[in-house]
Amino acid sequence: MTPVTIVGSLAALLTTVAYVPQAYQTIRTRDTSALSLPTFLMLFVGTCLWGTYAVLIHDIPILMTNLISGGLATIILYIKLTAKPGEKRPA
Amino acid sequence: MTPVTIVGSLAALLTTVAYVPQAYQTIRTRDTSALSLPTFLMLFVGTCLWGTYAVLIHDIPILMTNLISGGLATIILYIKLTAKPGEKRPA
Repeated sequence: MTPVTIVGSLAALLTTVAYVPQAYQTIRTRDTSALSLPTFLMLFVGTCLWGTYAVLIHDIPILMTNLISGGLATIILYIKLTAKPGEKRPA
Repeated sequence: MTPVTIVGSLAALLTTVAYVPQAYQTIRTRDTSALSLPTFLMLFVGTCLWGTYAVLIHDIPILMTNLISGGLATIILYIKLTAKPGEKRPA
């Protein structure tokens, strides 16, 4: 791996796993008051389109990273849509 | 533009502008209680690395999308780090 490839791979790794702690916190607390619904709707649709694009151009890395980040965005979006207003478990 | 390019461009557009409503909501309410600090730290470092990667490979689209999403992530991270606990303006 060249230094350039290492920088790119580390960038992809970080922006892909970034939603793990957000999903964990949202599952644990069910507090979605400060989360923007349009943001998570766009992330959901955007990662679905990235996945479609990856299948169309047969690109496995783009598919894998968007399956992970899209799955995490879907979990957060689902809780945002189903949690009752004001519902919050102790952190 | 081929249909494949349109799908990819729409995917890139959505995942880039997704943070606009989150940044707007966070600036307006200063409510960051439900936002995960590690998530926004990783998005900040990840987009900085994407920007570095884009400069190294001379890729303008990767640079532009990460300047936008990285700038929005920086705003949200800054408010997360500086807002007092429990500080919340009326929505």
